[in-house]
Amino acid sequence: MKAENGHSSAAPSPENESGIVITSRVRLARNVKDFPFPGWLKKADRLKLLETIQPAVADLSTMRPAKVSVAMETLTPLDKQLLVEKHLISREHAAKNAGSGLVVNGDETLSVMINEEDHIRLQALRPGFHLLEAWEAADKLDTALEDKLEFSFSPSLGYLTACPTNVGTGMRASAMLHLPGLVLGEQINQVIKSVNQLGLAVRGLYGEGTEALGNLFQISNQTTLGESERQILDRLLKVVRQLIELENNARQKLLQEKARMLADQVGRSYGIVLHSYSISSKEALNLISLLRLAADLALLPANLKPKLDTLLISTQPAHLQQASQKKLGAEERDAFRADLLREKLKGVPEPAMRKLHL
Amino acid sequence: MKAENGHSSAAPSPENESGIVITSRVRLARNVKDFPFPGWLKKADRLKLLETIQPAVADLSTMRPAKVSVAMETLTPLDKQLLVEKHLISREHAAKNAGSGLVVNGDETLSVMINEEDHIRLQALRPGFHLLEAWEAADKLDTALEDKLEFSFSPSLGYLTACPTNVGTGMRASAMLHLPGLVLGEQINQVIKSVNQLGLAVRGLYGEGTEALGNLFQISNQTTLGESERQILDRLLKVVRQLIELENNARQKLLQEKARMLADQVGRSYGIVLHSYSISSKEALNLISLLRLAADLALLPANLKPKLDTLLISTQPAHLQQASQKKLGAEERDAFRADLLREKLKGVPEPAMRKLHL
Repeated sequence: MKAENGHSSAAPSPENESGIVITSRVRLARNVKDFPFPGWLKKADRLKLLETIQPAVADLSTMRPAKVSVAMETLTPLDKQLLVEKHLISREHAAKNAGSGLVVNGDETLSVMINEEDHIRLQALRPGFHLLEAWEAADKLDTALEDKLEFSFSPSLGYLTACPTNVGTGMRASAMLHLPGLVLGEQINQVIKSVNQLGLAVRGLYGEGTEALGNLFQISNQTTLGESERQILDRLLKVVRQLIELENNARQKLLQEKARMLADQVGRSYGIVLHSYSISSKEALNLISLLRLAADLALLPANLKPKLDTLLISTQPAHLQQASQKKLGAEERDAFRADLLREKLKGVPEPAMRKLHL
Repeated sequence: MKAENGHSSAAPSPENESGIVITSRVRLARNVKDFPFPGWLKKADRLKLLETIQPAVADLSTMRPAKVSVAMETLTPLDKQLLVEKHLISREHAAKNAGSGLVVNGDETLSVMINEEDHIRLQALRPGFHLLEAWEAADKLDTALEDKLEFSFSPSLGYLTACPTNVGTGMRASAMLHLPGLVLGEQINQVIKSVNQLGLAVRGLYGEGTEALGNLFQISNQTTLGESERQILDRLLKVVRQLIELENNARQKLLQEKARMLADQVGRSYGIVLHSYSISSKEALNLISLLRLAADLALLPANLKPKLDTLLISTQPAHLQQASQKKLGAEERDAFRADLLREKLKGVPEPAMRKLHL
């Protein structure tokens, strides 16, 4: 399938520039015809399927040269955790071993999990608010795969999946939003409720059942049946646009009515990040979130944002572990994290609180 | 009575220089013969006594020129709270009105509360570890007063007081200790238990029933009967010296074994105090305490200490209220406090963490 609307979402727009949408993702669940779903697969069939799917995926022109093309049991726990922190695999897939596999393309914008809950979970990931682009990339990958493999498909239901909540399009489209204004303005719970009522799910940083750390929220479609991919995407796009507007309004309200609280939150984050010697991964996310908000509000230089976005990932446990090049205990990791943040953010000027009406 | 040992406590010594003892205080409870204690006094007698005691005190050469010599009802709630924050009157005395009074000498080292729990509660206050000096000053004031007023005294019991816990010497000698090392080293509860077992009381910043904020602890004698003033003082002096040693040991242990935690606590306090825009009075005490510890450990310049000691008082609610010259709500006070701390501590160099083995 092809989106009707070409590259519209790639055009620069206030939404794309707002920095509120951190990443856009589309994943499609697919299963190979005549094989049971992974949960019911015998070991021999599981391995056979993996041996069929993995080279088929890795050989696709869109996936070449593959950065990763492996059976899951060849990955160390650290490798797997790194992939989770990059949102390239699910936490569930990280627990998989023999009979499951993974292919990731060169720039880590496409990943294919093999024998996760479904035979194939392919995902396209884009930084910023580029849901349609992500959809197009996922769709293109899906179309190319469909030339090589025959998928379980029902003319009445659509794609068949292990869990009935994915039947139909098999698509889960999601946007990761940074909503510190709604959190500081204490509107977030009401907003989440409204979004849920529109049939969309709101989740934390690492998906289902995870906490909303760093004021980061994943918004995704709940339903996959009875609507086309484009209808689902349009609904999600509309809600994300509304959330961007609500977040911007909340920020304006903070600037006007709660400037002192805002200055205090931003100032403390700045002071702590530059002078602490032990920072947990949760605290780091919240500190980075507030500095990112400050950059969005021109209290800190705008060019700080890419650095902060990198730190959001590089301060996570597995990334720290990798950077330290040795096995770290939890305490050592917190120390290393604080050292990294101080070093990377050294020289950042003080927040320009004079711009606020205190 | 006169201490046998002259000015011994005024001589410089490692204890005096340690900065661990913030203030030394001695208060004596006295009652005028043939009058019921204040709680049982009829209003007319209360006023009569006040009219007798107040000028007698204010006329003493040691009290002249008096900075304050008033009936309590002439003081505003702000005046009273300021006096509590300076430890010149008790919180109980601040609640008194007609029939109670107060005389404070010019440099605020001597104060006399009239018709608090007893007819007379006279107090000598000294910065640093100068308990014997404080005792000498209190004793001198007591002796001078005894020339003018006849006190309730029993040859067998000593001075008679409203509460039996004060009968005998009527003396409560106390030292305010700054014990962040024992708190951070998690030894404080055990130390408090041991001090209690030695018959001494450990209280918070504003005396009986108050919290130990800013790692500040008041150590005082529990008993007033069966020992001379000098015996009581010697016991207190001995315990305070032991506490100084324990605190210094705890600090050395932190430096050697918990340098990272120490750096983190000091660094955060430094970062927060220089970049926050709203700070509660409790948080201010804790921040100042940690900066004071850093100065004691040469992580911050030693000349910061007098400034920090001033801030311990000037960031308290009534002092802030007075400095702002307008009525402040709690939120405005927290904002004003943060502004004051940022301004007063601007330019303080970063803690010299390179001195620590991180």
